[in-house]
Amino acid sequence: MRDIVVFSGSAHRALAQRICDALGVDLSPAEIKRFSNDCLQAQLLANCRQRDVYIVQPLVPPTQEHLMELLLMIDAARGASAAQITAVIPHYAYARSDKKDASRISLGGRLVADMLVAAGVDRVLTMTLHAPQVHGFFSVPVDHLTAIGVLADHFRGTDLENSVVVSPDLGNAKTATQFARLLGLPVAAGSKQRLADDRVIIDSIVGDVTGKRAIILDDEIATGGSIVELLDRLADLGCPRADVACTHGLFAGKAVERLRDHPMIGEVITTDTVPAPGRWPELKVRSVSQLFAEAIKRIHAGESVSSLFDGVDPTHAPPQASLFDKVHA
Amino acid sequence: MRDIVVFSGSAHRALAQRICDALGVDLSPAEIKRFSNDCLQAQLLANCRQRDVYIVQPLVPPTQEHLMELLLMIDAARGASAAQITAVIPHYAYARSDKKDASRISLGGRLVADMLVAAGVDRVLTMTLHAPQVHGFFSVPVDHLTAIGVLADHFRGTDLENSVVVSPDLGNAKTATQFARLLGLPVAAGSKQRLADDRVIIDSIVGDVTGKRAIILDDEIATGGSIVELLDRLADLGCPRADVACTHGLFAGKAVERLRDHPMIGEVITTDTVPAPGRWPELKVRSVSQLFAEAIKRIHAGESVSSLFDGVDPTHAPPQASLFDKVHA
Amino acid sequence: MRDIVVFSGSAHRALAQRICDALGVDLSPAEIKRFSNDCLQAQLLANCRQRDVYIVQPLVPPTQEHLMELLLMIDAARGASAAQITAVIPHYAYARSDKKDASRISLGGRLVADMLVAAGVDRVLTMTLHAPQVHGFFSVPVDHLTAIGVLADHFRGTDLENSVVVSPDLGNAKTATQFARLLGLPVAAGSKQRLADDRVIIDSIVGDVTGKRAIILDDEIATGGSIVELLDRLADLGCPRADVACTHGLFAGKAVERLRDHPMIGEVITTDTVPAPGRWPELKVRSVSQLFAEAIKRIHAGESVSSLFDGVDPTHAPPQASLFDKVHA
Amino acid sequence: MRDIVVFSGSAHRALAQRICDALGVDLSPAEIKRFSNDCLQAQLLANCRQRDVYIVQPLVPPTQEHLMELLLMIDAARGASAAQITAVIPHYAYARSDKKDASRISLGGRLVADMLVAAGVDRVLTMTLHAPQVHGFFSVPVDHLTAIGVLADHFRGTDLENSVVVSPDLGNAKTATQFARLLGLPVAAGSKQRLADDRVIIDSIVGDVTGKRAIILDDEIATGGSIVELLDRLADLGCPRADVACTHGLFAGKAVERLRDHPMIGEVITTDTVPAPGRWPELKVRSVSQLFAEAIKRIHAGESVSSLFDGVDPTHAPPQASLFDKVHA
Amino acid sequence: MRDIVVFSGSAHRALAQRICDALGVDLSPAEIKRFSNDCLQAQLLANCRQRDVYIVQPLVPPTQEHLMELLLMIDAARGASAAQITAVIPHYAYARSDKKDASRISLGGRLVADMLVAAGVDRVLTMTLHAPQVHGFFSVPVDHLTAIGVLADHFRGTDLENSVVVSPDLGNAKTATQFARLLGLPVAAGSKQRLADDRVIIDSIVGDVTGKRAIILDDEIATGGSIVELLDRLADLGCPRADVACTHGLFAGKAVERLRDHPMIGEVITTDTVPAPGRWPELKVRSVSQLFAEAIKRIHAGESVSSLFDGVDPTHAPPQASLFDKVHA
Amino acid sequence: MRDIVVFSGSAHRALAQRICDALGVDLSPAEIKRFSNDCLQAQLLANCRQRDVYIVQPLVPPTQEHLMELLLMIDAARGASAAQITAVIPHYAYARSDKKDASRISLGGRLVADMLVAAGVDRVLTMTLHAPQVHGFFSVPVDHLTAIGVLADHFRGTDLENSVVVSPDLGNAKTATQFARLLGLPVAAGSKQRLADDRVIIDSIVGDVTGKRAIILDDEIATGGSIVELLDRLADLGCPRADVACTHGLFAGKAVERLRDHPMIGEVITTDTVPAPGRWPELKVRSVSQLFAEAIKRIHAGESVSSLFDGVDPTHAPPQASLFDKVHA
Repeated sequence: MRDIVVFSGSAHRALAQRICDALGVDLSPAEIKRFSNDCLQAQLLANCRQRDVYIVQPLVPPTQEHLMELLLMIDAARGASAAQITAVIPHYAYARSDKKDASRISLGGRLVADMLVAAGVDRVLTMTLHAPQVHGFFSVPVDHLTAIGVLADHFRGTDLENSVVVSPDLGNAKTATQFARLLGLPVAAGSKQRLADDRVIIDSIVGDVTGKRAIILDDEIATGGSIVELLDRLADLGCPRADVACTHGLFAGKAVERLRDHPMIGEVITTDTVPAPGRWPELKVRSVSQLFAEAIKRIHAGESVSSLFDGVDPTHAPPQASLFDKVHA
Repeated sequence: MRDIVVFSGSAHRALAQRICDALGVDLSPAEIKRFSNDCLQAQLLANCRQRDVYIVQPLVPPTQEHLMELLLMIDAARGASAAQITAVIPHYAYARSDKKDASRISLGGRLVADMLVAAGVDRVLTMTLHAPQVHGFFSVPVDHLTAIGVLADHFRGTDLENSVVVSPDLGNAKTATQFARLLGLPVAAGSKQRLADDRVIIDSIVGDVTGKRAIILDDEIATGGSIVELLDRLADLGCPRADVACTHGLFAGKAVERLRDHPMIGEVITTDTVPAPGRWPELKVRSVSQLFAEAIKRIHAGESVSSLFDGVDPTHAPPQASLFDKVHA
Repeated sequence: MRDIVVFSGSAHRALAQRICDALGVDLSPAEIKRFSNDCLQAQLLANCRQRDVYIVQPLVPPTQEHLMELLLMIDAARGASAAQITAVIPHYAYARSDKKDASRISLGGRLVADMLVAAGVDRVLTMTLHAPQVHGFFSVPVDHLTAIGVLADHFRGTDLENSVVVSPDLGNAKTATQFARLLGLPVAAGSKQRLADDRVIIDSIVGDVTGKRAIILDDEIATGGSIVELLDRLADLGCPRADVACTHGLFAGKAVERLRDHPMIGEVITTDTVPAPGRWPELKVRSVSQLFAEAIKRIHAGESVSSLFDGVDPTHAPPQASLFDKVHA
Repeated sequence: MRDIVVFSGSAHRALAQRICDALGVDLSPAEIKRFSNDCLQAQLLANCRQRDVYIVQPLVPPTQEHLMELLLMIDAARGASAAQITAVIPHYAYARSDKKDASRISLGGRLVADMLVAAGVDRVLTMTLHAPQVHGFFSVPVDHLTAIGVLADHFRGTDLENSVVVSPDLGNAKTATQFARLLGLPVAAGSKQRLADDRVIIDSIVGDVTGKRAIILDDEIATGGSIVELLDRLADLGCPRADVACTHGLFAGKAVERLRDHPMIGEVITTDTVPAPGRWPELKVRSVSQLFAEAIKRIHAGESVSSLFDGVDPTHAPPQASLFDKVHA
Repeated sequence: MRDIVVFSGSAHRALAQRICDALGVDLSPAEIKRFSNDCLQAQLLANCRQRDVYIVQPLVPPTQEHLMELLLMIDAARGASAAQITAVIPHYAYARSDKKDASRISLGGRLVADMLVAAGVDRVLTMTLHAPQVHGFFSVPVDHLTAIGVLADHFRGTDLENSVVVSPDLGNAKTATQFARLLGLPVAAGSKQRLADDRVIIDSIVGDVTGKRAIILDDEIATGGSIVELLDRLADLGCPRADVACTHGLFAGKAVERLRDHPMIGEVITTDTVPAPGRWPELKVRSVSQLFAEAIKRIHAGESVSSLFDGVDPTHAPPQASLFDKVHA
Repeated sequence: MRDIVVFSGSAHRALAQRICDALGVDLSPAEIKRFSNDCLQAQLLANCRQRDVYIVQPLVPPTQEHLMELLLMIDAARGASAAQITAVIPHYAYARSDKKDASRISLGGRLVADMLVAAGVDRVLTMTLHAPQVHGFFSVPVDHLTAIGVLADHFRGTDLENSVVVSPDLGNAKTATQFARLLGLPVAAGSKQRLADDRVIIDSIVGDVTGKRAIILDDEIATGGSIVELLDRLADLGCPRADVACTHGLFAGKAVERLRDHPMIGEVITTDTVPAPGRWPELKVRSVSQLFAEAIKRIHAGESVSSLFDGVDPTHAPPQASLFDKVHA
């Protein structure tokens, strides 16, 4: 079997290191140079020839810098005769640009997919795309992982009596429904109108939340604006308290202050697909590095990724197993 | 300006004729031959050289036959040196295959988009894709029209007091929300679980429907199973009556019987993106041929399609105008 | 060496099973689903990751359905990270559309080749293309097998005295010439004019057939119209009897009745590249499954396919061996 | 309408000049430079920006030099922002490499087509491809002209009593059949075996030639070996005399001596798709420059090329008109 | 003729405005939105359908942001059915990454070219590429302008007695040689070793500079390190004073301080391909907007760009005219 | 590991044989056939299926013939299902066409790179490209070797006192600088103007050559015109004697006579990337076959090519090692 080589861009070296630890391989060194005219250059400092190369880089701010790093590293690996290049993009931020909702706008989700392919990528390994259709933007195989099993694990030991899973948006309520089934809970959803990227109005909530503890599930939290707006509506309807769970915890702008200190919020749970913000010790971060390492192991060995959770203790995770079956490519 | 030439496959010649009538051009003849080994061959019987060619073909049953006809006609037009080839696909049925919701399944929505491009298409003109992200499956420009203005027009003259717009599925509730705003109505949505292609369960409805007349809006009705299931839940909640509106009225299998004779249903409104079923005189069909003709006219003249409704009587259609602005590419 | 995985579409599962039996592997399960809007979806039910995948599907009626199945299965295999995908198409029916013999017609033979490549195929394994040039329509490697050795074997034990090989068409007489040399017989050919797909006139026969038993060789028999027309001409010239051999025995329309009951015909021999028609017990079907299995074995092992018949008993098959050398890619 | 610009490579400047004369445009200058390391460079000496560029270059010996010239000129035109580039290749010599008749051989006919497209060609205008299927090797539109009308014209005034059209090869007898119908003559064909590129055996002739004057029709005459072999067989069968007609009269090697002085040959007729050999004043050369000029005019004006012969005097050319209808793209 | 539409990214709106002023067209509005996850979205606010679209964006810091803006704007224009998209990139910064001078490094100059093409660009209009070979990195036509005529104009009126043109690097001395010929001056060049992107050693100077006034010509000045190093060597050799001219005056890092206050430097001349640094009133900036406007005008009108300077006053600019002839594509 | 198969075109079979000897494999047979119409056909006479195929062919005169041979052999290998095809092009002559230095000229260096890729090449292995940027013309990995270590070895044992390395051209002086450092010598360079492909003027020399022995280094010597011109200038400056070293010794036209008999020339050293000219026994040819064999071995084994000289005797080759590090891809 060909050797496996893992590189990391500068977006989230800690995650890359955790994945390598779980894989039992060394993280191979790479150097990103910035020229005085602000152009970047990537150099891979380990032999790639006929190797299966994995490059770990979530698209987190500064997003354009990290995207260009990733493209240059792919280009370098291709030029160095890598056998197969897999871009490991735990957070594919451009998935948010997935439709033409105005005249003559760019479709970044598809464009970036095409750019990755133009640079020479052979496969993409990612988690929780903003919409499942984004999978189809790629002309190369995509292995699409989900974190809802990891997030559900967090709540399994706790008292779930009188709780309800709440999706901030009707349009994304399907994943919340799956999550609620994992926990045996009912589901509710907000009817959201987006006025601007960071300004939303939630004018009603469908489903019963009065007097219940809400578990809000979102795929990505950036400014936290939607969450705060949702909390206001929940409060209007007599919901006293909410926990918040999300896969991609960006917490940009004033999100940390908004959420950390919000009187209604119990706890906030996220994963390490993106680096955690500083100054928030109470934030619960569950690592997805084991999931990524296992997926890479199976990709490399030619085993099924969709059967990732077969053989897991049935008293603990059976619903998760079937979910994974459905979600994985 | 280059000449415009419109051909029709055999899927829906009546719509193609209506579009040509609205455009004031003749429908150009084409011949589809079936060989004794069941292979098809297309021959275009009008000069295409340096012309802008439009081929009208919704993907309706027998879908594979009609798809292959379309691909062969595109191939013939390309080989005949057409300047630009636009596939006019009022109903892009393969948009339903838009995500990998099981292991190792095909992604027909992307595959068919790639096949159209491989055959030589330069642009696609379509209506109401099952999910807006399907737009991004195409590597050529897509002009994506909506029929909700046409459907809303049907209800504008009527008494809308005590009515509510109902979406069968939380996941598609956004379009229903737009439609409800056009009519100044509230919105509700079913929480749908799909057991199989033609078997769904709706386990709850979010939003208030008790004692109201429902206007159910769906993008496509095939077997009518979701609608009937939704009607049962509406009845459980004390909703006495429903009208049904959809863009793509396929009415396959027993759909006609199920819906035509259902005691709760007032009227069923659809458009002519697909041929209407026989034996259902009460079905209301609103034509979208004017919309397609106007879009073709603007594409051909290099005018904006997104401004399609500028200058419309402001007492009648202003919300529609802005909706179109948002939806068109 | 990578594992080998064989799937079958629904066109000819029996042949796929015979090939698997000869290979000593299990036929892997796949599911083709038809949605209520008549769209198809393919799901491969065995792991494809890093495997060499073979998909067996001759393009027989309903041809468009079977073609779309094949494309969707290829798409699914590619999305599932197959190492190499070989489309095994024993009968490539669209090869009949191999030239522009009228203005603005489609060139299906090339278009379907491009669609297979667009879907992600890496290699095609096929038999007896209608014209050898069709090989060049593919931009991926094609392994092109011939059945004339198998068909010649059928006649070898029999009395060939006073026989002549007859091609229905001057344009395809070359293969008949090879076949005649295998059997040590003279050759004759009809001068055919095609009035329509299923109506031909043969106005003369070149070569001496008077008083001889004809062995008619054709690549594909669909309606049998050419054969019957040829028999009439042979009768005119005093030829009392004919046997008929062909690779692809489609026997569409009234072909079974026309040929089964024709007073001049001795026996009809074909292969199992396509399913045999029912209601014709006298039809002789020779299987090509061994040939396909051996070719797959060699493709998989990186051995030469062109040397497929080296080492065969020299008293039996030497001319065949050299023929194969010439025909294989 | 965009301007038209015609360039010529060095293969056949006289034909390019005749086409320009018929078009009424100047032949634009181009320079081919040979570097001291034997590499070529093309420079186009007229503005190409937004023009329709036609580059005239038959693939005649030295074939590789002329092919590279053509590719470099296409590349230069593309780099100079030509609107559309048409390669006018009156003789596409690589069409002879149209099938894999031995293991691991190149398929030059397809490869050169791909190279032309890689260099940037938008359309090919050619004449009498060795096999009609070669049309399908191109992924860009091909306008495929025929010279058999021009050749038939030559014989129309003459005494055709007791004549027969003879094809050297059963495999190419279809065009001879069309030609024979144009002249109202019967057809015969040789059964040819090719031992090597320049050594063939014709072991029999199908059709009656005894005592008749043969009109031999071939698409291309290179060494003349097939023709001489055919004449021997014709003589054996009591055919006293033959005229020879071909589209592409290369007359390579000793062809001139073989044919010019052959006692059985009456006259030899060819066209100017390739330069005529010197030292053969009796050779009859009919120009196809009018045909090419008319085709270019129609391509440029967006008119049908397939209707090239509409309006021709019906007492003279009606069969020709319908033939052209069939042959043109 | 199709309409012309010019958009500007945010890199250098002033230059885009100057080009539009020279063209006599309005600069069309575009909006770049930054989402809270730091992804960008471009919206073009003028109709592009069937228009020739020009997007002005030099690749200046923050380079990755500006590159992504450009790619998204190209994508938006393509999706909006633009007829032709020209990226106007006055400074193509990634041209510096033009060779593999270390193992496994990226080749940014080629990668970015491929990305522009993948996004949908049809042509690139640029100025003074770091190496002329970078032209060949693009698979679409490139119109490559030079600024040395504009820079030479600056010096023409001045006293050039006892001056010498100095190139900082032997490797780029060719352009300095052309520049020197324009001014009728001798040329000298440093022998430069690059230790790192911003640290160079010039160990010798070839050519006579003693007692002369140097006119240093460079294509791009970033940190100014090479220039200061060169000045030290010039001083060692008894050169008392230098003027500095460059096309792309980035003046990054401490470049302004280094050069503005250097005792040996007379004046510094640059162009407006990139925005001028603040706090340097003495910097002489010559605009290239007229050159770009004229090139766009000619591209649009289908006129030759290479003859850009025909008809210029022969007493003033004849050498320039011929230089342009050589440099333009 | 997959088997390795090496073929040779007809350009330089001796070098291919030497590479095979160094590799310890047999040179596999291939046949190039020339048809009577001057078209070429390649047949590979060894099994390529799933093999790593290397095809050795420098682009030497007749260059077009050899290029076409190479393309056809690549096409044949691809059609024969080779796993990976590496074109071994020791002299890539078209690298000389690397920039647009006149209007509307072809860019052969890029075009030929694209043609190789269109034919199916997966990797290129070459030596001393005329400009390092030509590397970026290829969209497949290029392994780019240098011969300056081999050439430097030749001079290491000799008396280098009072010697100077001289580059004929400022523009290519960088490699001469590297070479000079390997030998611990100073460097000088000519200021060359090229009037035509074979006529240059060197108007001055930068650097001190008076009274010294020059070692002239060039990448390619074709007619030797530049060298003779340089020798004249060196003589003007009092340089009494010169040795000449080059990688690609084409010695076309009168180069042998010019250089062999020149009174100033001591010895001429070249490599066997191209066949040596006859009639020049004094020419010193150093073989690069070991370098190519080692590179192929490492490519095949998935080892780093850039570390080609690790472990070499440090007293002999350390500077070479580091050079190789920088030069290799």
